[in-house]
Amino acid sequence: MKAAVLHGPLDMRIEDVTPPALGDDDVLVDVKAVGICGSDVHYYREGRIGEFVVEKPLILGHETGGIVSAVGKNVKTVRVGDRVAVEPGIPCRACEWCKTGRYNLCPDVRFHATPPVDGTLCEQIVMPADFVTPVPDHVSFEEAAMFEPLSVAIHACRRGGVGPGKSVLVAGAGPIGLVSLMVALAFGATRVFVTDLHPHRRRLALELGAEAAFPGDGDVAAAVMEHTQGRGVDVAIECAGAEAALSSCLMSCARGGQVVVVGLSAQDFYKVPLNHLAQKELDIKGIFRYVYTYPAALDLVASGRVDVAKIITHRFPFDQVETGFEYAETGKDGAVKVIINL
Amino acid sequence: MKAAVLHGPLDMRIEDVTPPALGDDDVLVDVKAVGICGSDVHYYREGRIGEFVVEKPLILGHETGGIVSAVGKNVKTVRVGDRVAVEPGIPCRACEWCKTGRYNLCPDVRFHATPPVDGTLCEQIVMPADFVTPVPDHVSFEEAAMFEPLSVAIHACRRGGVGPGKSVLVAGAGPIGLVSLMVALAFGATRVFVTDLHPHRRRLALELGAEAAFPGDGDVAAAVMEHTQGRGVDVAIECAGAEAALSSCLMSCARGGQVVVVGLSAQDFYKVPLNHLAQKELDIKGIFRYVYTYPAALDLVASGRVDVAKIITHRFPFDQVETGFEYAETGKDGAVKVIINL
Amino acid sequence: MKAAVLHGPLDMRIEDVTPPALGDDDVLVDVKAVGICGSDVHYYREGRIGEFVVEKPLILGHETGGIVSAVGKNVKTVRVGDRVAVEPGIPCRACEWCKTGRYNLCPDVRFHATPPVDGTLCEQIVMPADFVTPVPDHVSFEEAAMFEPLSVAIHACRRGGVGPGKSVLVAGAGPIGLVSLMVALAFGATRVFVTDLHPHRRRLALELGAEAAFPGDGDVAAAVMEHTQGRGVDVAIECAGAEAALSSCLMSCARGGQVVVVGLSAQDFYKVPLNHLAQKELDIKGIFRYVYTYPAALDLVASGRVDVAKIITHRFPFDQVETGFEYAETGKDGAVKVIINL
Amino acid sequence: MKAAVLHGPLDMRIEDVTPPALGDDDVLVDVKAVGICGSDVHYYREGRIGEFVVEKPLILGHETGGIVSAVGKNVKTVRVGDRVAVEPGIPCRACEWCKTGRYNLCPDVRFHATPPVDGTLCEQIVMPADFVTPVPDHVSFEEAAMFEPLSVAIHACRRGGVGPGKSVLVAGAGPIGLVSLMVALAFGATRVFVTDLHPHRRRLALELGAEAAFPGDGDVAAAVMEHTQGRGVDVAIECAGAEAALSSCLMSCARGGQVVVVGLSAQDFYKVPLNHLAQKELDIKGIFRYVYTYPAALDLVASGRVDVAKIITHRFPFDQVETGFEYAETGKDGAVKVIINL
Repeated sequence: MKAAVLHGPLDMRIEDVTPPALGDDDVLVDVKAVGICGSDVHYYREGRIGEFVVEKPLILGHETGGIVSAVGKNVKTVRVGDRVAVEPGIPCRACEWCKTGRYNLCPDVRFHATPPVDGTLCEQIVMPADFVTPVPDHVSFEEAAMFEPLSVAIHACRRGGVGPGKSVLVAGAGPIGLVSLMVALAFGATRVFVTDLHPHRRRLALELGAEAAFPGDGDVAAAVMEHTQGRGVDVAIECAGAEAALSSCLMSCARGGQVVVVGLSAQDFYKVPLNHLAQKELDIKGIFRYVYTYPAALDLVASGRVDVAKIITHRFPFDQVETGFEYAETGKDGAVKVIINL
Repeated sequence: MKAAVLHGPLDMRIEDVTPPALGDDDVLVDVKAVGICGSDVHYYREGRIGEFVVEKPLILGHETGGIVSAVGKNVKTVRVGDRVAVEPGIPCRACEWCKTGRYNLCPDVRFHATPPVDGTLCEQIVMPADFVTPVPDHVSFEEAAMFEPLSVAIHACRRGGVGPGKSVLVAGAGPIGLVSLMVALAFGATRVFVTDLHPHRRRLALELGAEAAFPGDGDVAAAVMEHTQGRGVDVAIECAGAEAALSSCLMSCARGGQVVVVGLSAQDFYKVPLNHLAQKELDIKGIFRYVYTYPAALDLVASGRVDVAKIITHRFPFDQVETGFEYAETGKDGAVKVIINL
Repeated sequence: MKAAVLHGPLDMRIEDVTPPALGDDDVLVDVKAVGICGSDVHYYREGRIGEFVVEKPLILGHETGGIVSAVGKNVKTVRVGDRVAVEPGIPCRACEWCKTGRYNLCPDVRFHATPPVDGTLCEQIVMPADFVTPVPDHVSFEEAAMFEPLSVAIHACRRGGVGPGKSVLVAGAGPIGLVSLMVALAFGATRVFVTDLHPHRRRLALELGAEAAFPGDGDVAAAVMEHTQGRGVDVAIECAGAEAALSSCLMSCARGGQVVVVGLSAQDFYKVPLNHLAQKELDIKGIFRYVYTYPAALDLVASGRVDVAKIITHRFPFDQVETGFEYAETGKDGAVKVIINL
Repeated sequence: MKAAVLHGPLDMRIEDVTPPALGDDDVLVDVKAVGICGSDVHYYREGRIGEFVVEKPLILGHETGGIVSAVGKNVKTVRVGDRVAVEPGIPCRACEWCKTGRYNLCPDVRFHATPPVDGTLCEQIVMPADFVTPVPDHVSFEEAAMFEPLSVAIHACRRGGVGPGKSVLVAGAGPIGLVSLMVALAFGATRVFVTDLHPHRRRLALELGAEAAFPGDGDVAAAVMEHTQGRGVDVAIECAGAEAALSSCLMSCARGGQVVVVGLSAQDFYKVPLNHLAQKELDIKGIFRYVYTYPAALDLVASGRVDVAKIITHRFPFDQVETGFEYAETGKDGAVKVIINL
């Protein structure tokens, strides 16, 4: 089968690879749509993210929609012909985290497009049946692919306790920030503020339902405090991966607020205004991927509560995958989320 | 001032009473709209609810919208002219429940229209400033009055953990059942099932967004299981006040489900299918009024997420208060929620 | 190998059976001690518990301590020679409950001595490596077997929120009630009240640290209220499997209290005083076995915080297994927990 | 009455001041023992802590045990002659935080010895009756005074989810670190590690039940990982008020761990290793004083589960209050907790 294989920084080639073998509990998925994520771009450009280094050829891609073309003999929950969203991380199912409902923290998780585990920018993948989620006909393959970034937002909103009556700040209006905005609204929050450096992303945030959008390089906390009569927000979701944005999140929170850290830059140490943490008794919550979010993602998308298609700005066929990476990286022509169709 | 005073069962008289005195931390509210609740009807007809007996003349009414006409000298959060929703229970602020975020359980709470505490079917009431919630101009007095039943639904949905991806059964489509349906949807649930004995209430439930509505005297659990592929719902909210409805709730729940008991009949002991409690490890959660729900109610109503006006079917002027009680009691002419305008 | 096989009510025979096969992720355990549980006795006498019917020969026993005599080739966490406690329920690892930290609710769990799954009253068993917990040398095999009933108590105390500053009522001082008492104390509760019909079990409860022990057929709620100045307890754990005991639990709770239902009789419907549920806003929580309790059990036993040996009253060799069942059933000679040594 | 009044840095004078007036809901407490806290020392030396500046003469002290010598006419829960522990922060009882169980975050709290609110280093204080906790005869006045630092530890352990089966790191073995150690053990944790720069404090930690004590300036995370087979601890409680200690806490945590930040230096910004936050999905939780901890403190001390007297190293009479401050500041002669007796 064909696959887009990364051989080194900026060296991705479409080539023939051996298709994966189907086990008894597995399904074979014909890949139809793959979203390009910031981490894909990072591996493509740098060949590494922190400790994870591309040491041998790697297939990128982990936001995946497709159709089931074969099932193993034990599989009962999925059928050939099912259109599915693919959850990209397969945990060990036996460690303490797998057993206590936090399988995202499994030390032995095998996650698509994280070296040395191949991703999904290829014609076919094999998945354990319980890591694909069948979607109804009115959910498109690219919407199914979007369950993955949506999952990050769902996990962030859950960890932050977003709900009716809660006010939210989303720092950063890239793809994850924008789905976080949409998910926060779908969770019942009515007041969501967004920051971004780029005016066109702030405009998009307003179109998607943000109450206000502030320049990320301004005094965000002052703007939030003005909008909330000095109280601050209940939840701040940091999606910008910037030290200053995290500071703004802490400073913008009300007493007892929750700061959820989704975005992280390569920088290991951040300067954090801990006096805010203490005096307002905040919680700062790390986010590592997500856990058991696909059923909720299905619910939100299939019901129309979250229209993920609104942030898909560009599509490319498989043979233009590198162009897709270029748009995803640069945000060229207003690109937010880029999808590769197979 | 004028007040509708209950002197005994079916003996309510509009008469002049002494207006209440304004304290330093209080506000004076000119009452504009009062919803009639099932408990009001019960006191009106029976003169008692369980241990609470009307032993001296009592003003009924505890669902209240009005306008502030005076404020005590310490009051800073509310102004004369503010249109407000009134939270009817004033706790002691000093007991263990008041201090731990469950002030609804305060043994010394003074709750409107619960003997011997007077209610709000009168021209003016005095409230501590922190128990009135200012509402914007586009929220009507009768919508403000509806914050009270809405609060019951908010508290029930919170206690039951209703949210995106959760399926819900609401047993009983009276006013509380219907607001519970609306609030469950606003909390992010997409699949809400409703039961009621009356076809017109089931129709109303469907109009308000229920996925399906079943006759309450049928095999509710079988219908729920059919709609959920044998899994059952995550949350069941019992609003019917009937032993059979509670059984249906337990039987309709998925493993790990939550049963929230809002409705209670006069019957002290219920027969409950505890084998379902154990084998599915359910939680059954009692509901006593609500706690700190008015900000969320404001959010839901002001944002348009919950349109409480949809279940207000009848309005009567103050001098027809007894006609209002008749409609509320009998459901005559399709009455769901009846409002008295002052 | 030898096994105690139940062929029908009261018909248990020690006979030769085929030893189980070791898989790559499994360990082979030489069984050394098996506790007899009420459910074992029930199957032994009646041949069924509710829907679970012994339709073909069944090995009983699910409270197990032993020593590892072989490990599969993938096993890294356990070694030959490890002395282990055995967790008896193996879930599917793929369903929604397995993924969300409630694997005890897995519909496809295979649980020892629950038809048609064989138990551990035999010389050897095979277990997935992650369902055995190595114990240090100073923990005996029979203490390791006791991790199972201890797990029920740990799960009950967790579900009930037992902790420092909480007062607890344990209804019923059989083996599960007594370990619940010990675990509640180890969780930091200082005031634990116990009920039982039998004076010698009440005495044992007092020796183990109960503040007071009341006859289960008296006015338990009145006694609890007297000891708590009319407030009631924070948590009530029902271990008696009796309708009256459950009523006492609800009536004995403080406002906001938690009732945990561990014991269940064959009776499907219980009459429950729901007015207490509502007026005090109680939670009633079902218990189905336990989930991820063995690490905590190890901690409590190995540290000496819970001395489970104190309730082991009788031991019998394997060839007297039926005598052991007789003692466990009748409580003869003050029997509380009976262990079969292999 | 006599009071120790701070007029400026290092200028404390015992002088006559007007005794406070008793309100209807208040009690008058004759102060018997006052613990000296780090914040008292800080005000004494610097005249300020961050934004809180001593602008007019101020009585220090907020860890207080005493005896009730008069009660207001509404008071029913406390009697003249009751020996009491005094909770030093009186919230407004009306704001959103007061109503939702987090009254420690009340913006209008009046907290002893926080300018401009006077503390308790004086002969008599007046308190609302619900902010004194009667203690039994076997709890001494100085133990009652210790309820205050104990409260910090209880709140930290609650926020961190300390309990049976959890492992804990306490960074810093000053008074708060040592009570955190004791409280963690009382909450059921069996494995508690402690760090400190001073060998004698590490020795004290070991005597109090720590599994191991490490030098705070060494590679704490490496030591913790060695003791936990590379897993890390479930909860880390930062009591040292040092940037490096906070880093150690994050680095020492297991996946999914909780970092509770109790100690804070004057430094507003800390460098924090956020890669640990993200990759292990940690929570960092700020601590601002405590909320509703006195009942639990009473339980722990009265039951003997926490022996707070063990860290009281020095006592001084009222007229040697400045000597007491010197010992508390310098740790002279092994001083840990210093008590002033009146």
